[in-house]
Amino acid sequence: MVHTETFTLTAKGFCDIHDITAKVADVVGRSVIASGTVTVFCSGSTCAITTIEYESGVLHDLRRAIEELVPQDREYEHDKMWGDGNGFSHVRSALLKPSLAIPLIGKRLALGRWQQVIFLDFDNRERRRDIIVQVVGE
Amino acid sequence: MVHTETFTLTAKGFCDIHDITAKVADVVGRSVIASGTVTVFCSGSTCAITTIEYESGVLHDLRRAIEELVPQDREYEHDKMWGDGNGFSHVRSALLKPSLAIPLIGKRLALGRWQQVIFLDFDNRERRRDIIVQVVGE
Amino acid sequence: MVHTETFTLTAKGFCDIHDITAKVADVVGRSVIASGTVTVFCSGSTCAITTIEYESGVLHDLRRAIEELVPQDREYEHDKMWGDGNGFSHVRSALLKPSLAIPLIGKRLALGRWQQVIFLDFDNRERRRDIIVQVVGE
Repeated sequence: MVHTETFTLTAKGFCDIHDITAKVADVVGRSVIASGTVTVFCSGSTCAITTIEYESGVLHDLRRAIEELVPQDREYEHDKMWGDGNGFSHVRSALLKPSLAIPLIGKRLALGRWQQVIFLDFDNRERRRDIIVQVVGE
Repeated sequence: MVHTETFTLTAKGFCDIHDITAKVADVVGRSVIASGTVTVFCSGSTCAITTIEYESGVLHDLRRAIEELVPQDREYEHDKMWGDGNGFSHVRSALLKPSLAIPLIGKRLALGRWQQVIFLDFDNRERRRDIIVQVVGE
Repeated sequence: MVHTETFTLTAKGFCDIHDITAKVADVVGRSVIASGTVTVFCSGSTCAITTIEYESGVLHDLRRAIEELVPQDREYEHDKMWGDGNGFSHVRSALLKPSLAIPLIGKRLALGRWQQVIFLDFDNRERRRDIIVQVVGE
């Protein structure tokens, strides 16, 4: 069986990070599937999905790491060609990826106690974002 | 239901990037599965799968980022031990990973308009590469 | 059909890397599912799953890359707030991610010959770790 839902959020870009664990759990709760795999996916080329302990300190640390690994303030060929100014956003998204698969066991997401599912918006402006949650199982 | 196909491409290595979105969509089109999860996987320890807006500017930017994060021209223990000269390729592949899960909804991959599926070949020579596309759903 | 098992290992932290390919294959062997997708997931916010050629040279190279990308010996806001001393571990885990999907074809994991599944423990102390292996298919 397959259960798929999409929810929407407003993200500010510039490494805006949202805890979407409760939203993902809500979709799981509305499904009749008890065990299977939950795929969380963002349709967009300037965002990503991963997990983290959602507390302000480590979110700051993650943002700093991403800024150092793929700096915003330098020249990008994407910006020269298209003038979007978000070349850094695309590179960050390609490296962190828009997808995450989480096992569902007995109707519960197999996350650790300090492990939340996060959506990262790397773009350079506020945007509405669609997040897809898909459960495949029985 | 499960539908699995493998297709092959020739990649040049050194961060050669291929847009495989149409190939993945072809597999989906030949399957009877309308909704479920599509896993794209490369069997190899010097390659990766991710998404990006497939245009030459941002591909250049991604290549530069990968070169800076895991430089080719330095010493690698792998090369000292095995003489392959592709230690950098293995590290890049381990960091970017060979797998991506994409929701399939109403026979369509849930990709954004500017979001293509790419295969990255990090090796240091031309190779034939197998890409596996697997659809699990109903 | 869905088949899920959890196994446990003891990891030392500080980028301790375990080859878990045989353990994952064992779970697949105990399942009746012949084709489908295998999700390998670690429940924890200071660890990750990926693939690599499991040999000591490239493991050294990967550890060096991770240390350079997200250094241990610097200040982290997480540590200032919580005193855990493992801010670097959380950031590494968020970047490398705790999940990997591998196609299963004819009862075999679709891994390349030199491609092993690894668990990486980024924490700063020895811990028991649960690894979940979930097969969804037919």
